[in-house]
Amino acid sequence: MISFASDYTTGAHPDILRRLIDTNLEPATGYGTDIYTKNAEEKIKKACKCAGAQVYIATGGTQTNQLVISTMLNDYEGVIAADTGHISVHEAGAIEYSGHKVLTIPGHMGKIDAGELKTFIDTFYADDNHEHMVFPGMVYISQPTEYGSIYSKAELTDIYDVCKKADIPLFIDGARLAYALTSDENDVSLDELCNLCDVFYIGGTKAGALCGEAIVFTKNNMPKHFITLVKQRGDLIAKGRLLGIQFETLFTDDLYFKIGRHVNECKDKLVKILKDAGFEFFYRSPTNQQFVIIDNDKLKELEKEVTVSFWEKYDYDRTVIRFATGWSTTDDDLGKLKDILEKLF
Amino acid sequence: MISFASDYTTGAHPDILRRLIDTNLEPATGYGTDIYTKNAEEKIKKACKCAGAQVYIATGGTQTNQLVISTMLNDYEGVIAADTGHISVHEAGAIEYSGHKVLTIPGHMGKIDAGELKTFIDTFYADDNHEHMVFPGMVYISQPTEYGSIYSKAELTDIYDVCKKADIPLFIDGARLAYALTSDENDVSLDELCNLCDVFYIGGTKAGALCGEAIVFTKNNMPKHFITLVKQRGDLIAKGRLLGIQFETLFTDDLYFKIGRHVNECKDKLVKILKDAGFEFFYRSPTNQQFVIIDNDKLKELEKEVTVSFWEKYDYDRTVIRFATGWSTTDDDLGKLKDILEKLF
Amino acid sequence: MISFASDYTTGAHPDILRRLIDTNLEPATGYGTDIYTKNAEEKIKKACKCAGAQVYIATGGTQTNQLVISTMLNDYEGVIAADTGHISVHEAGAIEYSGHKVLTIPGHMGKIDAGELKTFIDTFYADDNHEHMVFPGMVYISQPTEYGSIYSKAELTDIYDVCKKADIPLFIDGARLAYALTSDENDVSLDELCNLCDVFYIGGTKAGALCGEAIVFTKNNMPKHFITLVKQRGDLIAKGRLLGIQFETLFTDDLYFKIGRHVNECKDKLVKILKDAGFEFFYRSPTNQQFVIIDNDKLKELEKEVTVSFWEKYDYDRTVIRFATGWSTTDDDLGKLKDILEKLF
Amino acid sequence: MISFASDYTTGAHPDILRRLIDTNLEPATGYGTDIYTKNAEEKIKKACKCAGAQVYIATGGTQTNQLVISTMLNDYEGVIAADTGHISVHEAGAIEYSGHKVLTIPGHMGKIDAGELKTFIDTFYADDNHEHMVFPGMVYISQPTEYGSIYSKAELTDIYDVCKKADIPLFIDGARLAYALTSDENDVSLDELCNLCDVFYIGGTKAGALCGEAIVFTKNNMPKHFITLVKQRGDLIAKGRLLGIQFETLFTDDLYFKIGRHVNECKDKLVKILKDAGFEFFYRSPTNQQFVIIDNDKLKELEKEVTVSFWEKYDYDRTVIRFATGWSTTDDDLGKLKDILEKLF
Repeated sequence: MISFASDYTTGAHPDILRRLIDTNLEPATGYGTDIYTKNAEEKIKKACKCAGAQVYIATGGTQTNQLVISTMLNDYEGVIAADTGHISVHEAGAIEYSGHKVLTIPGHMGKIDAGELKTFIDTFYADDNHEHMVFPGMVYISQPTEYGSIYSKAELTDIYDVCKKADIPLFIDGARLAYALTSDENDVSLDELCNLCDVFYIGGTKAGALCGEAIVFTKNNMPKHFITLVKQRGDLIAKGRLLGIQFETLFTDDLYFKIGRHVNECKDKLVKILKDAGFEFFYRSPTNQQFVIIDNDKLKELEKEVTVSFWEKYDYDRTVIRFATGWSTTDDDLGKLKDILEKLF
Repeated sequence: MISFASDYTTGAHPDILRRLIDTNLEPATGYGTDIYTKNAEEKIKKACKCAGAQVYIATGGTQTNQLVISTMLNDYEGVIAADTGHISVHEAGAIEYSGHKVLTIPGHMGKIDAGELKTFIDTFYADDNHEHMVFPGMVYISQPTEYGSIYSKAELTDIYDVCKKADIPLFIDGARLAYALTSDENDVSLDELCNLCDVFYIGGTKAGALCGEAIVFTKNNMPKHFITLVKQRGDLIAKGRLLGIQFETLFTDDLYFKIGRHVNECKDKLVKILKDAGFEFFYRSPTNQQFVIIDNDKLKELEKEVTVSFWEKYDYDRTVIRFATGWSTTDDDLGKLKDILEKLF
Repeated sequence: MISFASDYTTGAHPDILRRLIDTNLEPATGYGTDIYTKNAEEKIKKACKCAGAQVYIATGGTQTNQLVISTMLNDYEGVIAADTGHISVHEAGAIEYSGHKVLTIPGHMGKIDAGELKTFIDTFYADDNHEHMVFPGMVYISQPTEYGSIYSKAELTDIYDVCKKADIPLFIDGARLAYALTSDENDVSLDELCNLCDVFYIGGTKAGALCGEAIVFTKNNMPKHFITLVKQRGDLIAKGRLLGIQFETLFTDDLYFKIGRHVNECKDKLVKILKDAGFEFFYRSPTNQQFVIIDNDKLKELEKEVTVSFWEKYDYDRTVIRFATGWSTTDDDLGKLKDILEKLF
Repeated sequence: MISFASDYTTGAHPDILRRLIDTNLEPATGYGTDIYTKNAEEKIKKACKCAGAQVYIATGGTQTNQLVISTMLNDYEGVIAADTGHISVHEAGAIEYSGHKVLTIPGHMGKIDAGELKTFIDTFYADDNHEHMVFPGMVYISQPTEYGSIYSKAELTDIYDVCKKADIPLFIDGARLAYALTSDENDVSLDELCNLCDVFYIGGTKAGALCGEAIVFTKNNMPKHFITLVKQRGDLIAKGRLLGIQFETLFTDDLYFKIGRHVNECKDKLVKILKDAGFEFFYRSPTNQQFVIIDNDKLKELEKEVTVSFWEKYDYDRTVIRFATGWSTTDDDLGKLKDILEKLF
């Protein structure tokens, strides 16, 4: 059985495990005050080429979204997101649990449009009764999106311009940022990203870490007493070293980008295999998630040998499934997939 | 520099690291549905000898306290705890963030008294205006407490009787449960504990894991749709395997208890060393935390070679400090401490 | 200057004021335990012909929506509403503030469709990942809706059938219920309404009271310790008599229905006047709110003599405005409006 | 049956009812934007002699406490109050429902001590782990307190000095402020009060209004978009005129102070009657609440003819009861009480 189900099905990159072992017996202070975390923060700031950046490493994606959104919004504000955005649909209400509404605008293969965003905000302020409504207080986008699509520099610039004019922060969910940054179609570098938003995160869990997402506040704008806010929301762990060591490793010797490039190379091979097998693409993304349409009976056969993700029903007879490559995907896996598909089609 | 600062200063027990490495490339499903987590849950249930138990492994202590309390209480209820209890003082308001009041009664070296608990509850119901007050909805205790003290079986039985009569659950915070279970003075086994409360947790972070606390609902009483509630509170991680693998290991070949016994043996040696050095004990606990009183100038000297925890000021000239042993404490560490103290006093 | 801006622009029906004066010096107990409130509750239950009903009188509409929704939902649940529903748009995030998501489905002139509702719920449960999403936990509709439209008995029956099959309660916002119940097009009596939902409220503020909405739990299903929950949400007032006296009066000698009929009669006259003036109707509702399209320059003229409500822009040159009749609308007001419109057009 | 149970047992002062009638048919805009509310705000500012003051009239006491505290605190902060303070005990957890901890210090007949307050704050900041604790973010006191005691100008000045040094606001709950301001023992005028705190409220409900408490932000420090925050917390009512008209009346022709003086004069007569009857005072307060100790069997007799409030058990045989005078207390009531007591003792 081989798995293309997701990019978080296996453990950690070997370099991370090795570093965990090497540092295991060194005593460290708790709750993110340890030297590994400090190192990781410095390395990330350097990679971002952003002196005013402040970094905090949270445990996971939902945690990060809840944390950033609920600590940066005023009580009277909600967060604008694509209707297909992760926080709109798949966070189990974690944003609302923190007291804030998710204000949705249309997603286009996961992406929002700067013009539609502007119209939404303008319409709000044009309403005489807007004091009876939830104020737009932040814009949330994902890079890449939940569909694997990526924003171009021009698109990000337009969105950020709208945010700045409305005086609200732009937050970029980078759960799979590694795969945007190293995509052939990408034209936004990490340091450029820092200048195109107020806060973003560098996803670890889906890029070879066991857990951890590094939040980067780009403008010295980390909320006051952030540690207290983190603990209050139930996101602070005692052995912060676990997070620090992982990100220290990911940002040593360019590992984060190496993983990204490897995964995208595997993706290119995957796309070729899927094309050769004659699949119709539902969406041919520039990053590590690929969506194809498959007959339901073929899917049953496929699932005997390959784990993939169900995405949605396409029609009565067909299903959209997702193939994802990850840090641990090998040529061997891809070869096996090729063989299975050749046998199947 | 040697450290007796806490039991969470170093990494993970070698068996855990080894298991992480061995399983690293095995694909697993996400969010706690993996086979390692299932195994861990089964092993814990077996160790608890409790067929009706349900287990969920959370990431950390604050997370667990917030999760258990906020999902088991009704909105009109608060949780009763010792005024020195962790949730009363050191959770940064995580319980109140979830909308619930912590109702305090006196702590006696960290322990609450069944009689005082009963009086508190009776007084509440005797008040004509109690519908304008927060209902007592749960009792929270720690075993061992924040002071390292432990409840006897008789004491737990009395407290649980009060809870059952009041029809409210008893929750036991077991962040350091390993050290209560293996203390010479303990008379409550793990399976007996299951029968003396409605929910408790088996602490991993402070007993050799990188992170993780295994919550045990003892009466088939896990709140409905618990995973959704966990995710909503920002406590669910994608690679649940990280937690599962650790607890699977801790509950294989009695490791959790072996760690507990090792730490308590180190504690016995520590106590002897502290006694021999002539320390006055602030509190001589039956578990791995020991509190001694030290002159401020001696403390300055000590801190040049040993890391300890500040506990509180004793008087103008003296301070209460805490020494803690942990899974990685060695005879070598203890020998060095002995030498340093002999030199110092 | 005459006002057709809304149905809550003037004070209270004279019968209410008279009763406030008559009872003013009688001592009463506080917080809704007074005899007037008890009487009001009994009268409402009688009017509903519903023995199992439980009544609680809250202060206002937002309060009621927040109260009912947040006390009846489980934490993992959200409330389904039309995208144009009051709780979706105009409650300033009061539902989210209580921790719950509003799940939107399309509104059709304010109304939801039973089929679309069923599809929404079925789609949720068909999703493998639905434990990562907000559970549908209640359906919220308004009778009449924010557009003045009303549900027929058949429509309500269909919607309630979907709810019962999904085992979730149906909540009907009756801020303007008086005008649905007494509309010519209505075929749902008050007692039938009780059998077609789990909870609804009888709006007072918009039907001649100074404040107050009477919540009716139709199935002996008032949440436990409701008073405590109300106080906790900041909705309990000391002089509950103020609410009790008003509803006691509204449900004495059929006053609530008399007000409803008067307002709908005024509405009929209003519609004739608007038609005669040649207005194009944006929506010709069966209740007291009427929506017409007006040229922007005519609107400016109109607003010199009549207060109306801005509804939305129709196009560049025209605006949708709302005329509403209320308990204090008189034939004199209507006559003046007729004269003004004749002059204007 | 006569009532000395509380100061909110009867309806409204006749001047208020009269004004409600006089204005009843005047159309007004909703949600506190009406002319009556504007007038009330101006009159209150004038009475406070405070140009920078901002006024908002909320519906009740719990509402006001929840509103002020939850909108002025940062998420990482709690509110310090006497352990006997209303928000500590009798708000059904309304403060915690808004996510904030009530941090208690000892109450001395309801009053806190500036020195103990300072020690509490200093101890917090001296703790190395204070980032894991709830920050002191506001001080809450009542004037008069729940026991009827009042703070002197010197005491308020000392408390406010501690607050200013700690850079946290002082909030004064003035549910019964009328009776402090007009007490013989009072030395703090309304305008002086404005200079001795950051926010306070002028209680209406317990001083002759049907409902309503006027919050005064003394330093142009009303939280941004306050109306939205109020609505979100479920405290905004459509007919804000109800609140505005009442406070406009209370602050016309000195009515608020006239009511205060009348109630305190009644209190003086009450005290004489209680003394003459030979009662032992539990606490002889300078305001309208008087606490006496009574034999349980005598209490049973008394309650056949007079309604009083149970306060607490004094010992096995005796009870502390509260007598309160109010705006509607008459010499006739007092005469009857005198006769009843003479008969009884």
